[in-house]
Amino acid sequence: MKTYLDCIPCFFRQALEQGRLFTKNELIHKEIMNDVATLVPGFSLGLTPPEMARKMHKIFGKRFGEQDLYKTVKDQSNRRAMELYPKLKEKVAQSKDRLLTAIEFAIAGNVIDYAAKNTLDIEEEIQKLLKDNYTAGRKGVFEYEGFKRDLKSAKTVLYLADNAGEIVFDRIFIEEFCEHREVIFAVRDKPAINDALREDAVFCGIDKIAQVISSGVDAPGTILKYCSDEFLKIFRQVDIVISKGQGNFESLSQEKRSIFFLFMVKCPVIAKETGCKMRDVVLSRI
Amino acid sequence: MKTYLDCIPCFFRQALEQGRLFTKNELIHKEIMNDVATLVPGFSLGLTPPEMARKMHKIFGKRFGEQDLYKTVKDQSNRRAMELYPKLKEKVAQSKDRLLTAIEFAIAGNVIDYAAKNTLDIEEEIQKLLKDNYTAGRKGVFEYEGFKRDLKSAKTVLYLADNAGEIVFDRIFIEEFCEHREVIFAVRDKPAINDALREDAVFCGIDKIAQVISSGVDAPGTILKYCSDEFLKIFRQVDIVISKGQGNFESLSQEKRSIFFLFMVKCPVIAKETGCKMRDVVLSRI
Repeated sequence: MKTYLDCIPCFFRQALEQGRLFTKNELIHKEIMNDVATLVPGFSLGLTPPEMARKMHKIFGKRFGEQDLYKTVKDQSNRRAMELYPKLKEKVAQSKDRLLTAIEFAIAGNVIDYAAKNTLDIEEEIQKLLKDNYTAGRKGVFEYEGFKRDLKSAKTVLYLADNAGEIVFDRIFIEEFCEHREVIFAVRDKPAINDALREDAVFCGIDKIAQVISSGVDAPGTILKYCSDEFLKIFRQVDIVISKGQGNFESLSQEKRSIFFLFMVKCPVIAKETGCKMRDVVLSRI
Repeated sequence: MKTYLDCIPCFFRQALEQGRLFTKNELIHKEIMNDVATLVPGFSLGLTPPEMARKMHKIFGKRFGEQDLYKTVKDQSNRRAMELYPKLKEKVAQSKDRLLTAIEFAIAGNVIDYAAKNTLDIEEEIQKLLKDNYTAGRKGVFEYEGFKRDLKSAKTVLYLADNAGEIVFDRIFIEEFCEHREVIFAVRDKPAINDALREDAVFCGIDKIAQVISSGVDAPGTILKYCSDEFLKIFRQVDIVISKGQGNFESLSQEKRSIFFLFMVKCPVIAKETGCKMRDVVLSRI
C-alpha cells in the first residue's frame, strides 16, 4: 500500500519514541525531529510506509551507528512467550478446531504488548482477547475456509515473520501444518524496531520446524526491491505465502502473487486501506 | 508552558486536518505538510504551543488567505448549545450548589464534541459526563473552596473564552456571579480554529451580562506579547482572571499573576505538565 499523509505525524511520533530509547538528551531528540522534517519534502506517497520508515531509520543509523536498540525488549518478549508455550499447546490440543485456535493465537501474539508485563498478565490478556471467539464473528476479512483449502494442497509454505515474542505464537500455528510440508520462516536481515531476527527464531525453536532465512531487508516490512535473491526465489516458487503483521501487509499488499495476510488492524490508515474497522481480524488474500 | 517535542506530531496532524477542510486536493495537503516541516528546525521548545500553532496557521494564511474555515462549525455549535440553555439553567436552579453545578457545566462545555450531533445526543453526553458528580471526586486539581473565597471578595472578573458553543456553558457559569460584579469576557481577535470570536459571544447573549472584548490575539491561546494594550490593562487590574480551556492554559501557565485555570485534561502533554491524568478536571491556580 502507498503511504498516507496521516502516516507523517506517526513517523515523527515513532522517531521521538526511538530517540528517547537512545538518549535522555532533549536537544538530541529535537535534532532527530529536525532530521525527520528534512525527509518530509522527499516523502513520496507512491512509496509504502515501511519504505518511508526505512528512510527514517537511516537517520538513526547515521547518528548512533547500527545498534540493536530493542534487543532487551525482544529478549524479554521471547522469554515471556516461551513461558506460555506449553499452556497454549495444551489449549490447541483441547480445542475442536486445532488450526483455527492456532490461528487465533497467532493473531493474539500480534496484539499483545509484552512490555513490562509478566506471563500471568499476558495470559489474562490472551483470554480477554479470545473470549468472544473473535475470529468466528468474522470481524474484518477472515477467509478461513479458503485458507484451509489452499493449505491442504500446498507442499511449500513461506511464512513472513513480524515481531519477536509473537513468533512463539507463529510457531504454534506453523506446528499445525508443518508435518508434511516444507516451511520457510523469513525474518528481517538487520534490526528494525522489535521485529524478529534469526537469533529470535532460533531462541524460540522455530529452526527445528522450519528453515529460517533472512528476507535481506533492514526495515519493518518485506520490501521486495531490497530482498535477497535467495528470498525472492523462494517467494516466487512456494505454494503459499503467509504474511504476518501490518508491516508486511503495508509492503506487500500490491504484489501480484497470492499472499495470505494475517494481522489485526491496529491503525486508522490500515483500517481505511482494508475497509475494516480498528481491531478487526484479517486472514485474507485482500 | 513550553512546547514539548510530543506536540510536533500533533501539529502535523492538525495541519493535515485543517488542510482537508480547505481542499480535497491531496497534492496541496502534501505541500502543507512540507510547509510545516520547514518550521520544525525553528520550533523553539521555549515557546508555548499556541505560539507554535500561530506560526503554523500563518502557513494557511499565506496559502489560502484569511478565511474563517470553522465558521459553519462554530455557528452550529452555538445554535446547539443555545438550544440546551433553558434546560441547563433549570438544572442549575434545582441544584444544591448552584455555583458548583454551573462550573461543572462549564467544564462539560469544554469537552463536548458538537460536530454532527443533535441537541438530544449532546444532552445525553452531558448527563454521562456529570453522572459521577465528577468534580466532587476531586479528580485532578479542583480548588473549589479557594475559588469561592476569592470570588466572594472580587469586584472585577476577566473571563478568557475558549471555543464557540462552549461559551453558552460559560455564560451559565458567569450568570451565577455577574450580578454585583463587573465581568469582562475576552475572545480571540481573528479566527483561530473553532475559538470564539466577538460575533459568537454576541450570538450567545454574553454581551448582555459582560463586556465583550478582544484579546488582540489571532492564535488559539492568550499569548500576552500579542495582546492589545486594552486587554493587558484589564488583565493586570482585575481581581480575578478565569482562564478557560487548554489553549489559554498553555499560553498563560507561566504568568506571574494569579489565574484560575478551568479545563479538562485532554492531551498527554498537559497531563504531564499538570501532574494530572487524562480527563481529569482542573480548577486551579496551578
